[in-house]
Amino acid sequence: MLNVLTPDEVSELIKEKFSPLKNSTEAVGLDEAVGRVLAEDITASEYVPDFDRSTVDGYALRAKDTFGCSDAIPALLTLRGEVLMGESADFELDEGECCYVPTGGAIPNGADCCVMIEYSEDFGDGTIGISKSGAPGQNMIFRGDDVFPGKTVLERGRVLASQDIGALAAMGVVSVPVVKKLTVGIISTGDELVPPEEKPRAGQVRDVNSHMLTAMLSAFGVKCINYGISVDNEAKLTEKVTKAVSECDAVLISGGSSVGVKDATCRIIESIGELLLHGIAMKPGKPTIMGKCGEKPLVGLPGHPVAAYFVTRLFVLPLLSRLMGREEPTYTVTAALSESVGANHGRAQYACVHLRYENGKLIAVPVRSKSGLITTLAGADGYFCIDRDCEGLPKGAEVSVTVCNGN
Amino acid sequence: MLNVLTPDEVSELIKEKFSPLKNSTEAVGLDEAVGRVLAEDITASEYVPDFDRSTVDGYALRAKDTFGCSDAIPALLTLRGEVLMGESADFELDEGECCYVPTGGAIPNGADCCVMIEYSEDFGDGTIGISKSGAPGQNMIFRGDDVFPGKTVLERGRVLASQDIGALAAMGVVSVPVVKKLTVGIISTGDELVPPEEKPRAGQVRDVNSHMLTAMLSAFGVKCINYGISVDNEAKLTEKVTKAVSECDAVLISGGSSVGVKDATCRIIESIGELLLHGIAMKPGKPTIMGKCGEKPLVGLPGHPVAAYFVTRLFVLPLLSRLMGREEPTYTVTAALSESVGANHGRAQYACVHLRYENGKLIAVPVRSKSGLITTLAGADGYFCIDRDCEGLPKGAEVSVTVCNGN
Repeated sequence: MLNVLTPDEVSELIKEKFSPLKNSTEAVGLDEAVGRVLAEDITASEYVPDFDRSTVDGYALRAKDTFGCSDAIPALLTLRGEVLMGESADFELDEGECCYVPTGGAIPNGADCCVMIEYSEDFGDGTIGISKSGAPGQNMIFRGDDVFPGKTVLERGRVLASQDIGALAAMGVVSVPVVKKLTVGIISTGDELVPPEEKPRAGQVRDVNSHMLTAMLSAFGVKCINYGISVDNEAKLTEKVTKAVSECDAVLISGGSSVGVKDATCRIIESIGELLLHGIAMKPGKPTIMGKCGEKPLVGLPGHPVAAYFVTRLFVLPLLSRLMGREEPTYTVTAALSESVGANHGRAQYACVHLRYENGKLIAVPVRSKSGLITTLAGADGYFCIDRDCEGLPKGAEVSVTVCNGN
Repeated sequence: MLNVLTPDEVSELIKEKFSPLKNSTEAVGLDEAVGRVLAEDITASEYVPDFDRSTVDGYALRAKDTFGCSDAIPALLTLRGEVLMGESADFELDEGECCYVPTGGAIPNGADCCVMIEYSEDFGDGTIGISKSGAPGQNMIFRGDDVFPGKTVLERGRVLASQDIGALAAMGVVSVPVVKKLTVGIISTGDELVPPEEKPRAGQVRDVNSHMLTAMLSAFGVKCINYGISVDNEAKLTEKVTKAVSECDAVLISGGSSVGVKDATCRIIESIGELLLHGIAMKPGKPTIMGKCGEKPLVGLPGHPVAAYFVTRLFVLPLLSRLMGREEPTYTVTAALSESVGANHGRAQYACVHLRYENGKLIAVPVRSKSGLITTLAGADGYFCIDRDCEGLPKGAEVSVTVCNGN
């Protein structure tokens, strides 16, 4: 029999026992890459921009031609014309000359700064008066200021955000190497379960977990295969698990709240692979099983939806991240508890909260309900953890809330 | 000429000038609903659960039959058999009787609590010894504890998260009323732009904005139509904008950093609708234009990618939320600045940061670079704002960072 592990020990176990999958790179187009995991470092092979650019509408010139000028005594420069947007500046500016350059336009050789048009006067005779002295490099971006060959712009493992897509576009990376989407199989077990579209008879309840898990994994960028509801029959469950393992990168076996099903899940994992974990010291979520078959994880989740929810968020998503080489830090928001919360379990206790602002301060309202109620979760904005060695928190205590809106 | 508005005034303007679209509800399946905006309140029409359930493996009984029992003097009850998972308890327990019920199983009428199996002994002769007294209601969930007819479980406007999908499954809501996806048209303007797949010639740069915007809006759940790059030609741009307005719910006209294009965008908006805004007191992002044509918003975004990025996050996403009736609060994380940051602009200044943990404390490292560089954004984890009346922040100052990883 395996010992019950603490949440931290489970996180360590995941790192130790699982590795990023090999040969899991595919190329997708720029407009399909947001939210995907970058599979390789992106290193520039060109200069961006590839020419010196102005950052203002104004006159490109040699800064020293304007030193000491003022409103009263403007520097008088000879206009060499205009650089059009999108055109190269195929002439060289001499001393005493200037040319008009729009924002983003190319600065000709010979010029070393740009003076805003607000500080100029066009005398109409080919002479431009400049009333504010420029400094070398002012109001311009140099070739390669943004990106130069060899610069690593994005590191593999990053979940691509829109700002990263912008950088890829600038560099001309239109085929983006990303980690292939994982396929996760979901099996629900339990004689009491009926699909959500059916009206439960007495003693029956609807299958919540497989749909909640599908939603959470889909939002995480994973493809789900739902293998349906399995009754508490070990031979049939074995068949289903074996099929799912052969077709998927990972398999979740949800529920079966009875002792018999838990034992069966353990035996099945041991018969086709290795059992790694039996029980996590957390509430809710204790009756969790984890194993592996080859490199593929198998997780037996608690039947209670709230327990299954926390175990999936806290351990299954990190486990899938590990397989994908996905590096995504999680951040928490700080909120003050609206009321005291008790805990005295010797195990980490997780609770959902609603968040709201009161006088500019973020307040966490703990959702109170009996174990196993799905409406504990519905409408929740996030959750927090009370450490195993903490006996409770008073009203007003600051807690770190992981926000889980919209995913 | 319209005045430049502060960011807060722009947010007010959006609320005042735009309303949620009408007739924009569609039904999607449960497994497609995560991330979508709920279009109607979800009110229960049934009891969940529809029967009294046990939350433990143990014996259903009348609590008062166990009062005063102990290890030494167990209460002796007559076993009336077992309730199987998924079956109804179609008998009534009398005084002095008990029956076995698994976790989640139905509790028969007559019983008012459940005692865990750990506190029982089966004497094998039809008698069960109970060594711990129960209390009425203990270890059970009553019919309707989770949901009862008339209870509003989820409110319209909520972005459905996996925990909400679980509740919908429990209630049998398999066809979910959500707000239709918006379609947003994106037009890039600028003679200097080439598509990302092309190698820019001297004076040219790749079109960054339309791909960055497509990524951000896609991650936000919006359908994008890219109308391509428009050269600085007012007649052609008018044609493109008119076509986009007819086909989309909103239109973004990106860039055209030259004064001519900005003026043209204003004239086009005025010719087909109403100009609402010309300039926001923020940095970067000042040259922003907003208007409406019928109920459809038109936004002229700055050409600088970093400016376009902030304006889209701060104003375009809220504007689209308004059209969708989407209620999604944003939360910020608190981080300490790794170095001082100057500001002295009389306008709100936005800056990207990298986030990292140092000794358990969250540190924000400001990304420093010249205006307009796209690598300012690449790899950024979030951003913060320096208020218009603040002249800068010292190293170690706590800032509120909006995290923008993965979207």
